[in-house]
Amino acid sequence: MKAVIEAVPGGTVTSPEGFFAGAVSAGINARAAGKLDLAVLFSETPCVAAGLFTTSKLKSAPVQLTKQRLDPGKAGAVVVNSGCANAFTGEHGLVDAAEVASLVAEGIGIDPEDVLVASTGVIGVPLPMKRIRPAVEMIIMSRDGGHDLARAMMTTDTLPKETAVSVKIGNNGFTIGGAAKGSGMIHPDMATLLCFLTTDAPVERHFLREVLKRAVDLSFNMISVDGDTSPSDTALLLANGLAGGEPISADSPRAEAFERALEQVCVYLAKLIAADGEGATRLIEVKVSGAATILEARKAARAVVSSALVKAAIHGADPNWGRVVAAVGRSGADMDEYKIDLYLGDIQVIKEGRHLKSGKRAVNKLLKGKEINLRVNLNLGEGSATAWGCDLSPEYVAINSEYMT
Amino acid sequence: MKAVIEAVPGGTVTSPEGFFAGAVSAGINARAAGKLDLAVLFSETPCVAAGLFTTSKLKSAPVQLTKQRLDPGKAGAVVVNSGCANAFTGEHGLVDAAEVASLVAEGIGIDPEDVLVASTGVIGVPLPMKRIRPAVEMIIMSRDGGHDLARAMMTTDTLPKETAVSVKIGNNGFTIGGAAKGSGMIHPDMATLLCFLTTDAPVERHFLREVLKRAVDLSFNMISVDGDTSPSDTALLLANGLAGGEPISADSPRAEAFERALEQVCVYLAKLIAADGEGATRLIEVKVSGAATILEARKAARAVVSSALVKAAIHGADPNWGRVVAAVGRSGADMDEYKIDLYLGDIQVIKEGRHLKSGKRAVNKLLKGKEINLRVNLNLGEGSATAWGCDLSPEYVAINSEYMT
Repeated sequence: MKAVIEAVPGGTVTSPEGFFAGAVSAGINARAAGKLDLAVLFSETPCVAAGLFTTSKLKSAPVQLTKQRLDPGKAGAVVVNSGCANAFTGEHGLVDAAEVASLVAEGIGIDPEDVLVASTGVIGVPLPMKRIRPAVEMIIMSRDGGHDLARAMMTTDTLPKETAVSVKIGNNGFTIGGAAKGSGMIHPDMATLLCFLTTDAPVERHFLREVLKRAVDLSFNMISVDGDTSPSDTALLLANGLAGGEPISADSPRAEAFERALEQVCVYLAKLIAADGEGATRLIEVKVSGAATILEARKAARAVVSSALVKAAIHGADPNWGRVVAAVGRSGADMDEYKIDLYLGDIQVIKEGRHLKSGKRAVNKLLKGKEINLRVNLNLGEGSATAWGCDLSPEYVAINSEYMT
Repeated sequence: MKAVIEAVPGGTVTSPEGFFAGAVSAGINARAAGKLDLAVLFSETPCVAAGLFTTSKLKSAPVQLTKQRLDPGKAGAVVVNSGCANAFTGEHGLVDAAEVASLVAEGIGIDPEDVLVASTGVIGVPLPMKRIRPAVEMIIMSRDGGHDLARAMMTTDTLPKETAVSVKIGNNGFTIGGAAKGSGMIHPDMATLLCFLTTDAPVERHFLREVLKRAVDLSFNMISVDGDTSPSDTALLLANGLAGGEPISADSPRAEAFERALEQVCVYLAKLIAADGEGATRLIEVKVSGAATILEARKAARAVVSSALVKAAIHGADPNWGRVVAAVGRSGADMDEYKIDLYLGDIQVIKEGRHLKSGKRAVNKLLKGKEINLRVNLNLGEGSATAWGCDLSPEYVAINSEYMT
């Protein structure tokens, strides 16, 4: 059974059947008046659900609440706000997060336990509940509300991140959609800051968790903006089954197609996040091959996209290849300086550890492009991996030195 | 026996008896014409010696050579250059490093095997041997040549880093001196980029190694500038014994005083390096106490000084304490958000996880100072540690986006 995976034009998190969303401007961050900052995503039928969360010991109130509510593997709605992370806010933060979920549950008419919560923004400041309470009632849900939800999640993001793909297998099919936010504080050790994935495919609970974990490992866990991580990082996947058919599990005929399509959505969103890093002007893609193992390839690829020196050099279109090799060297992956090859796009710049006299003009042209593709071949084994990041610009510092004041 | 440790006014790496140094401008980096860039340090009598090196899999030619030569635990001289790291330069780099050592050995009249080598600068470019060969002969050695050596090591450093302390125990005494360089690419996992330590105390070989390791762990391994590490990182300690007395070993009466004095020299140099981070305008000192273990305290302290978001906030004098707590949270150290206390200087800003309404004007004044002191008490155990870093400024990016071009 051959599957065809296609991008849905104008696709978003509400593209799959039965998903609705809506957003309002609640005025959560007084400095971003008028910006959409509170949104709800819900499914007209109950969903099987899975989530991945920050590995930080400091977990935001929404992360604590949502983790717990996802235990039974089901959900009906997600409420998200930007402007305030509700992190490092103590017991009070938990009470606030639960109240927001209850208000949404009441509005939709579902069990509060089926409402998940996510927040992003400043750490250490309580949610302005006085502004949120009346705002929840103003949210109008629609089938194309995913676009507004993607906008409501944004903080320092300059663009909304959303997509959907449709999968056709014979006469059957299903759709997977997603919306994400994340700009600063995105680091390889973590899930993305916030990512909501939806599908109308019927998916078995345990398989949903497994496949989400693998897709996140290949996408959001392979991007880096600034090496920091957040107490709020959350990736959720909701499956309502409205597309019909047998529930997909690990040994289903449709399992492979579902996993590939989910990966495609996650990688697309992850690249958008990397390219939209705070102050970023260029997307950096690093493919490492020939590593001793896949894990070592991942370490090496992430070390290169995380290197402040590599990122700054690329910002300046500076062909400082030594920094790329130095990043691989300190990644912990096995390397032999006499075997390493490095390519910029299709131009080989290092062969078996020696700098080639590559055409300066061609190199310079590629380095000034919007997307920098680096390929490292360690020539030691079969492990390969891809990571994405962005350049480091003076604007990154400007954005992050004036976030609160 | 009570020891008195005092700073030597104008102290440097040649302050201990019997050490000489000299430097010249060899023109290694064509863009820094006239700058001192090649220096030799030597002792008139053979030294017991120990070294610590980068943990990167990519090791510069000087690191490979020096590691090997230090195996017997002795040395007579060190030759250092800036402007070119002689890293990622293959077999040829090893030949060049050995030739530089041989030229110096010939000039001084010692065994080439007793000459150690260190280089710093651009990675992936061969040493300009044509300029170095004649320059070695021009070096004039003197007892106060340490000052010139400290200058010759500088790359993007804005200030030379040098110091010495004298230790008096009854009628006996000895001196410890040091010179270091390091600005970008300084990260907690590593020894400093380059640090040469000297003493006229007689020290037993194994104790010298142990005590160097412990002092580096408390100093150079607790600083961070940009999270990157270098293939060249080297810390060397040479002891010529000219101050006389019994060789100091682990159970000697003078062992404790020697270790404290060495620590003092290393911490002093490490703080100078942190404060002189590329583009830095402020030194950040983070003391973590109350951690479950010392190792966890170190992790937490280093996570805070390494956080790009904390560093950028401090650059902007932005009281974004949530970022400090978030950095502790993701460090891997155990924490409880309901127990954490945070102080800026003497002002407590967080108590048991709650933001205090601390005087805004006083906080603002401290945040605009040249040295930012943060104290985190996790209130969980007895582990404590101190780390140093600097703010992240737009100038960091400017410096690092135009290093080669």
